[in-house]
Amino acid sequence: MANALDLIKVILCNTSHPGNIGSAARAMKTMGLHNLLLVDPLVIPNDHSRALACNASDVIDQAIISHNLDEALNTAQLCIAMTGRKRQASSCLLTPKQIAPQIIASIAKQQQVAIVFGNEQNGLSIEQLEKCNRLVTIPGNPLYCSLNLAHAVQIMSYEIYSHYSPDLEHLIDTVQSADHHDRQHLLARIDQLLLSHTGYYQQHNRQQTLRRLQHILHKADLERTEIDLAHGILKSL
Amino acid sequence: MANALDLIKVILCNTSHPGNIGSAARAMKTMGLHNLLLVDPLVIPNDHSRALACNASDVIDQAIISHNLDEALNTAQLCIAMTGRKRQASSCLLTPKQIAPQIIASIAKQQQVAIVFGNEQNGLSIEQLEKCNRLVTIPGNPLYCSLNLAHAVQIMSYEIYSHYSPDLEHLIDTVQSADHHDRQHLLARIDQLLLSHTGYYQQHNRQQTLRRLQHILHKADLERTEIDLAHGILKSL
Repeated sequence: MANALDLIKVILCNTSHPGNIGSAARAMKTMGLHNLLLVDPLVIPNDHSRALACNASDVIDQAIISHNLDEALNTAQLCIAMTGRKRQASSCLLTPKQIAPQIIASIAKQQQVAIVFGNEQNGLSIEQLEKCNRLVTIPGNPLYCSLNLAHAVQIMSYEIYSHYSPDLEHLIDTVQSADHHDRQHLLARIDQLLLSHTGYYQQHNRQQTLRRLQHILHKADLERTEIDLAHGILKSL
Repeated sequence: MANALDLIKVILCNTSHPGNIGSAARAMKTMGLHNLLLVDPLVIPNDHSRALACNASDVIDQAIISHNLDEALNTAQLCIAMTGRKRQASSCLLTPKQIAPQIIASIAKQQQVAIVFGNEQNGLSIEQLEKCNRLVTIPGNPLYCSLNLAHAVQIMSYEIYSHYSPDLEHLIDTVQSADHHDRQHLLARIDQLLLSHTGYYQQHNRQQTLRRLQHILHKADLERTEIDLAHGILKSL
């Protein structure tokens, strides 16, 4: 699926604040999305947009400005309208978590996907909404559900990326986990120390103590280097 | 779990821009979070913060300002450090999706949870990071992973809310889905129309046509009112 994310476009309709366009561009790029389409923005992207886009000003520079949502949607199989929570009462309302697998399935089939966001104050008009074949609402606080536009773009982009490339494996050091023998060996050594060099077992039950230590070792999920550390400390005692 | 979300606090350390504090407050409130704690902010919240907070300025007004991260964390069982993707190479790095169920489990047990975000430019220091017992990274574009601070707060808050109260049921009209009989009845009527009033079956196989129409009816997942609509149209023909 190399570049499959390029099949996704974000469409912002009638955006009021050029700053939001910049923040949305940054949000998109952090999640691997690059295609931005602006339908009738109230102000075209300016220096303020670029300032808030930070290193995503390429997304702004390549953005397409259009006067026609139909044209913008034309080649998209999956057309997703983002809608606020209050006005919507539709039976096919999906959450970002529910739509994300559908988006991934579409781009895997080389189909285009459009995600349409409305104006900051009023959202999408009914006419804009009805052009789309999916409605998505971000769940949130029923008493205050007014998400910033760029934050909504961030959440959708994040859900798509998380379903597309969900793991952090490339970020994680390969560590050698301790195995059963490592743990038993460490436990035996602690037991030996308590038995031979302390009076601990005169006041405490040996089996119970070992069981509790065993439990701690299980929970701690030690790496081999941490087992070595413990042996070093025990040796120094 | 009424008010269980009140057991969660968001801690912003050494924040540079008061606007980000406002945007973070708004992001929190949209997802039902209210407890904001500022450790050594470079500028204390001001009018710009309140402007960006919109109707979440109560979160700003109630925010606690502290000079001591230890004190801020003190009563929290689960202390989550948010860390950028580049610097971190730890074996226990979790995604927001992985930590969210742990957070919900903690607050269900009435335990306190703290989520700690670092400075915009440098993130958390090693000293701040090491005070926490969980590390979380938001997965994203390996080539450009610089999320805005408030956007990161939004994603974490959203994941928590989505696991806490995942559905949109209260937003959805209760609709009566068509049942098997409704669908069969509609299909029979279309069949009758084609048979008696058109020459369609002279050129097309009747069984195959009905099978294809059946398939469409299955996919469309009609409501009872939509079945009625179809009958009305058929009647008018």
